[in-house]
Amino acid sequence: MALRENTEIKRKSNLAVKSTYRNFPMVPRVVFGTGCFEQLGEILLPHRKNADAPMIYLVDDVFEGKDLPNRLPVIFSDQVIFIPADEEPKTGQVDALVEQIRSNHQEIPSGIIGIGGGTLLDLAKAVALLLTNKGSSSQYQGWDLVRKPAIYHVGIPTISGTGSEVSRTTVLNGPKQKLGINSDYTIFDQVLLDPNLSIGVPKDQWFFTGMDCFIHCVESLNGTFLNAFSQSYGEKAMDLCKEVFLGDLEAWESREKLMMASWHGGMSIAYSQVGIAHAMSYGLSYLLGIRHGLGNCLVFNQLDDYYPEGVQLFRKMLAKQKIQLPSGVCSNLTEDDFNTMIGVAMSMEPLWENALGPDWRRDITADILLEMYRKI
Amino acid sequence: MALRENTEIKRKSNLAVKSTYRNFPMVPRVVFGTGCFEQLGEILLPHRKNADAPMIYLVDDVFEGKDLPNRLPVIFSDQVIFIPADEEPKTGQVDALVEQIRSNHQEIPSGIIGIGGGTLLDLAKAVALLLTNKGSSSQYQGWDLVRKPAIYHVGIPTISGTGSEVSRTTVLNGPKQKLGINSDYTIFDQVLLDPNLSIGVPKDQWFFTGMDCFIHCVESLNGTFLNAFSQSYGEKAMDLCKEVFLGDLEAWESREKLMMASWHGGMSIAYSQVGIAHAMSYGLSYLLGIRHGLGNCLVFNQLDDYYPEGVQLFRKMLAKQKIQLPSGVCSNLTEDDFNTMIGVAMSMEPLWENALGPDWRRDITADILLEMYRKI
Repeated sequence: MALRENTEIKRKSNLAVKSTYRNFPMVPRVVFGTGCFEQLGEILLPHRKNADAPMIYLVDDVFEGKDLPNRLPVIFSDQVIFIPADEEPKTGQVDALVEQIRSNHQEIPSGIIGIGGGTLLDLAKAVALLLTNKGSSSQYQGWDLVRKPAIYHVGIPTISGTGSEVSRTTVLNGPKQKLGINSDYTIFDQVLLDPNLSIGVPKDQWFFTGMDCFIHCVESLNGTFLNAFSQSYGEKAMDLCKEVFLGDLEAWESREKLMMASWHGGMSIAYSQVGIAHAMSYGLSYLLGIRHGLGNCLVFNQLDDYYPEGVQLFRKMLAKQKIQLPSGVCSNLTEDDFNTMIGVAMSMEPLWENALGPDWRRDITADILLEMYRKI
Repeated sequence: MALRENTEIKRKSNLAVKSTYRNFPMVPRVVFGTGCFEQLGEILLPHRKNADAPMIYLVDDVFEGKDLPNRLPVIFSDQVIFIPADEEPKTGQVDALVEQIRSNHQEIPSGIIGIGGGTLLDLAKAVALLLTNKGSSSQYQGWDLVRKPAIYHVGIPTISGTGSEVSRTTVLNGPKQKLGINSDYTIFDQVLLDPNLSIGVPKDQWFFTGMDCFIHCVESLNGTFLNAFSQSYGEKAMDLCKEVFLGDLEAWESREKLMMASWHGGMSIAYSQVGIAHAMSYGLSYLLGIRHGLGNCLVFNQLDDYYPEGVQLFRKMLAKQKIQLPSGVCSNLTEDDFNTMIGVAMSMEPLWENALGPDWRRDITADILLEMYRKI
C-alpha cells in the first residue's frame, strides 16, 4: 500500500520553488541552562593553543565594575576589552579592534568571546573574521566575500532577540552602507545561553530587542522565500514571543523563553529573509544611529498595509508592556537626509524581494518610503 | 528602570536544576528543500580526499532497482552497498560492514553516506565511527566511550520520525543489549533533507515511524529532565505531528512538515530523554526484532497511567489514519522471554529517571512491566 505515490506536487503560490538550496551552517556547539556561564572556562580550555595565544573577551561596558567580569576565566595573556554598545557596530571600530589585538599580543589569539547584545556579538564575529582575512572589514560587507575561516569565536548573549547568536551575518555600519558580512565563516563555533545573564536589562531595551525577534518572524513568515524549514522555526519563535509579551510568565520563565525565541527566530532566517521593517530600519540606523531594535519598532508601527496582523499584535504588546514609542524622530530631517535613508533602504534588494516578490520595484517607490519615514 | 533585578529564581518542581549542562553538538550543515538530493555531488566534492578514498553509500535495499541509485554521485572508487532494513541494526552487522569496506578499498573512505530510515542512518553513523575507532562496535555501546572522531558522514533520511538525523546516538542490538553509541562524534557532519525522498513509503511504516517522533515528544515534554531549550523543540515537533496526523494537509506539505517534526523532535532530546515507551520498546526489539517505531506504538498504547493525554491523542491519530495495531504479539512468550524483555527495559536507567524521577524504582517493578508486556 503506497502512500501518496504519484501525487502531483503542488506548491502554494507564495512558496518560491528553487533549483538550489543553501547548505546552511548551524552553530556546531551550544550549551543552554541557568548558570551555565560557569562552564565557560572548561569549554574554552581545549581551544587554547598556548599561553601566548590569548582568549579575548569583548564585553558590553554595561558590565564594567559589575560581577560578570570577575567570573570570566581570564588566564595567561587573556584580555578583557569593554566596549560601549550605545551605537551600532562600525567597520572602522572592527578594524581598530583587530589592530589593537594584533599590537597587544605576539600571537594570533586562541579565540574571541563576545558577551553582550547584538552589537557585541556582531563585533566578536567580525573581529574573528578579520584576524584571518586581510584588509578592512568594509571589503567583506556583502554576500560570501570572506575567503578564510575565522579564528574560534564564541557568542554569549546577555539580551535576547537579535538572533545574532545563530546567524551567518554580522551587520556593520560601513563608510558607504549598513550591510552584513554574510558568510558561512561568520557563524559562531560555540554559543552559550545562560538565561540569568539577561537579569537587569532595562525594560525598554528588553522590549525593543525582543521585538527584533518578533518582527523577524512576521517578515519571515509573510515572505516569499519561506519554506517548511524556516516556517517551523519562525512559528515557534512567534509562539514564544506571544507567551513572553502577551502572557503572564514568571520572570525566570520569561527569560528562558525569550532566549529560545531569539534562537529559533534567528534560525528561521536560514531559508528566508527579513523584510520591509528591517530594510527601512537600516536607513534610520545609518543616518541617525538609531539602534536596530528601536528602529525596527518605529518602522514596523507604520506598516499596517504590509503586515496588518503583525502590526496589530505589536500594538497589543506595546500596550500590555506599557512601552511608549518615541515620536517625531524624523521631524527635523532635510530632504537630503530622507534621500540618504531611502537610498540605504532601497539598496536592500533581497529584503524587498522576500517581502513583495521579484517585481517589488513596481510597488515600492521613493515617495512611498518618504511618506512613511516622515511619520516616524 | 531595571527589569526583574533581584527577582527570586523559582523553578517548577518538575524542572531539574543542574550544576552542569551538556555542551550539545548540533549538525554543522543542513540543506533542506524539495529536490535538494540533486545537490549531493556538489556537497560531497570538497570532502573527497583522492580517487582511492571512496564515498561509501549505504542505501536501504528498498531502493535497489529504483531510480534513486542512478541519481547518486558515484565516481572514482565509490561504492554503493544496499542493506535490508527489515531488522534493527546490529553490532555484528556494523563490524562486518567495516571489515568489508576495509578489505574492498586500499584507503580509508572519504565519507559514509547513509540513505534510508533510522536503521540506515544509525548504521552509517556506527560504520563511520568504527572506521577510526578500533575493535567491535559493541565496545562503544553506552555513553561517551568513543575516543576518536568518526570519518566524514552524511545522513539522508527517506522516512521521517526517528530523529536519528540530528541525534548523538546510534542505537544497536548488541550481544548483550540494545543500546546506543552515545557520543559527540556520532552526530552527522552533514544532513540532507529532501521531502520528496519519502514519496512511496508504505502507509503503516509512515505512521509507525512518525509515531516515534510523536512518542519522543510526549516522553520528553513530560520528563523530569526537561528545560526550555528541549521544551521549545518538543512543542514544535508535537504541533507539527498534530498537523500531519490529525489535520488535512496536502501530500507535499505533510511530507515537509513531518520531516521538520522529526528534526525538531530529535533536537528536543538534547536536554531531555525519552521515557517509558522507549525503555519497554527496547525490550520488544531485543527479544522479537520488532522494529522500533511499531514497538513504541505497541507499548505506548498500554501507558494510559503514565501519559494519559498523549495516549488519548495517539488513539485519535490511529483512528484518523485508519491504522490497526497488531495484537497478541506477546501471547506465546515464555517466562524467560518476559524476563529478558523486562531486564532490557529496566536497564535503561536514564529513561526511567527522566520519566519518573530519581526514585523510579519505588514505582516500577518487574511485575508491573510483566503485566503491561502480557497485554501487547
